[in-house]
Amino acid sequence: MPPVVPILLTPGPLTTSPRTRQAMMVDWGSWDERFNQLTASLCEQLLAVIKGGDTHHCVPLQGSGTFAVEAAIGTLVPRDGHVLVLINGAYGKRLAKMCEVLGRRFTPFETAEDQPSTAADIDRLLHADPSISHVALIHCETSTGILNPLPEIAAVVAQHGKRLIIDAMSSFGALPVDAQKVPFDALIAASGKCLEGVPGMGFVFARKQSLANAAGNSHSLAMDLQDQQAYMAKTGQWRFTPPTHVVAALHEALLQYNEEGGLPARHQRYANNCRTLIDGMAKLGLRSFLPDAIQAPIIVTFHAPNDPRYAFKTFYERVKAKGFILYPGKLTQVETFRVGCIGHVNSLDMEAAVNAVAEALREMEVTDI
Amino acid sequence: MPPVVPILLTPGPLTTSPRTRQAMMVDWGSWDERFNQLTASLCEQLLAVIKGGDTHHCVPLQGSGTFAVEAAIGTLVPRDGHVLVLINGAYGKRLAKMCEVLGRRFTPFETAEDQPSTAADIDRLLHADPSISHVALIHCETSTGILNPLPEIAAVVAQHGKRLIIDAMSSFGALPVDAQKVPFDALIAASGKCLEGVPGMGFVFARKQSLANAAGNSHSLAMDLQDQQAYMAKTGQWRFTPPTHVVAALHEALLQYNEEGGLPARHQRYANNCRTLIDGMAKLGLRSFLPDAIQAPIIVTFHAPNDPRYAFKTFYERVKAKGFILYPGKLTQVETFRVGCIGHVNSLDMEAAVNAVAEALREMEVTDI
Repeated sequence: MPPVVPILLTPGPLTTSPRTRQAMMVDWGSWDERFNQLTASLCEQLLAVIKGGDTHHCVPLQGSGTFAVEAAIGTLVPRDGHVLVLINGAYGKRLAKMCEVLGRRFTPFETAEDQPSTAADIDRLLHADPSISHVALIHCETSTGILNPLPEIAAVVAQHGKRLIIDAMSSFGALPVDAQKVPFDALIAASGKCLEGVPGMGFVFARKQSLANAAGNSHSLAMDLQDQQAYMAKTGQWRFTPPTHVVAALHEALLQYNEEGGLPARHQRYANNCRTLIDGMAKLGLRSFLPDAIQAPIIVTFHAPNDPRYAFKTFYERVKAKGFILYPGKLTQVETFRVGCIGHVNSLDMEAAVNAVAEALREMEVTDI
Repeated sequence: MPPVVPILLTPGPLTTSPRTRQAMMVDWGSWDERFNQLTASLCEQLLAVIKGGDTHHCVPLQGSGTFAVEAAIGTLVPRDGHVLVLINGAYGKRLAKMCEVLGRRFTPFETAEDQPSTAADIDRLLHADPSISHVALIHCETSTGILNPLPEIAAVVAQHGKRLIIDAMSSFGALPVDAQKVPFDALIAASGKCLEGVPGMGFVFARKQSLANAAGNSHSLAMDLQDQQAYMAKTGQWRFTPPTHVVAALHEALLQYNEEGGLPARHQRYANNCRTLIDGMAKLGLRSFLPDAIQAPIIVTFHAPNDPRYAFKTFYERVKAKGFILYPGKLTQVETFRVGCIGHVNSLDMEAAVNAVAEALREMEVTDI
């Protein structure tokens, strides 16, 4: 008997459906018309999720989500632009690092890891420095699982006539964003997150007009989204070899996404997963790091037990042996671990995961939680 | 009955084995120790192909081969470097374009598409301009299928104390390169070519010392190979989400590569494929564009028939209906089409492909070939 493959309770790569993986059993010619149709259908379905078809292009990009975020900044922020970067975790810090490497002027605005940025903050900062051209933020910061108030921030940014870049990596497809109500220049996500595809590509929803004006901005040939989109519009093809199997898997995952009921259904399932997880862990005495009001139903950070017999590595291995892969914490001040609520899993899986955690702690004789 | 999936006679993505695709049926945690082991084993096997373990790092990179080539130039050529770019086709031109976008000084040296660069040319050019720090070339230029004389050029570059960057995208794994005999700073290839994996990642063999000196060179965070390698050495993990399924498929493809007999066996199978193809097509009157002496056994460019009843699109569709996907020509002056010899195919497949071509031409009533 082959070993049981553990369920991934991680923020992506995550557990996909057998049907999604099965879509990778075919080799596609990247030049072939049928593959072009697959790409076009993919982009169309993605745009429908944010109601963005009239205003935005969907530009797929090879690589990971981080590649797509860097591509969005490099393509859409002019070389003399100035980016206000909102930071309350590792991914916000990465945005700032990208601006630094790309040579784009930026101003970081950092709040505590359990503290969302607020629209009032942004309003004040934009008033104080009119040279700021763009605001960049993380929608759901997976360092902790915190949700930043996107619609409110977007409204303020628009009032000031500035441009917004949203890293929606871990929220896209599960938390609603309507491009007709939330103004943005770029929203970025990837294949292997809430859409439940496999990792290997990102995509950027880029405002059509902004992208058209972006020729020559990019620091990179491969990551030039303006060039990528222009070529695709002309030929139907990707500029450089696409990850054909990843594209096919994402397309199949999107069909299932829509069959399930689209965003509301996906959101509900993840919210149920999150509730089941937090309630179950609470019964074991394990407290989540964030208050419910700012906890996105994507990934939950838990305080590690106090007990000296607790060690994350042992805990991780024991829970894994019972069929679940957890995720380490990413906070510097507090010892934590994380559990994802996303992927092809439901609340029964979450109950089983809580049971596995309980057993693991019992085996480790961890009592002071 | 499901439609027959055509065999890809293209330069990648190409036809993979069922066993390779089957390796994608598992979801891997990118943080998990087992996945780290998979990555480490992958890099070790790749280094063994070029006998590079002592002198070079293997740095895998998300994206397509083009991403890895750009990353190699951006990371290894200092900002005040000067690259001599050898061009005899579209991929050489792309190297020059990258240097331009990245702001690296470059001098193009272009020969005709059926004319390899020669060591004598490079010797002369390096003598004439001592400011040149790097030479970049395409090993096998898939625009035509032409093979450039790598060992001779590498020797001259080394004699001048200059650095060599080799785009070996379509040759790596099939044409021998020994890192202990052919001096280079970077050799770049990708998952979906002669190793017969699926597309979605590239990798760069980078001279250890050169990579260690390359901190801060890169124009990009995501494509910084020095940072990628340093992080991987420290943690065993990729810096950003890896294309887990693509990695697993490439690992499985490498196991099969070694079981088949490694490079000599792979080279022999492709050489047989190429011979069978060229001989079979010759019997139909279809002439290959390149003389045998400079024809790599990777992809063959054929002159299109003269007959006015010939049209590539119809020809392509008819051959595809018979089970084979061909590739369009990429020459501007002459009408051509291309047929790949690589992938999980053998000379029987090539015979069948020739038969499909013959039938298609007959159906189209193409007689003047």
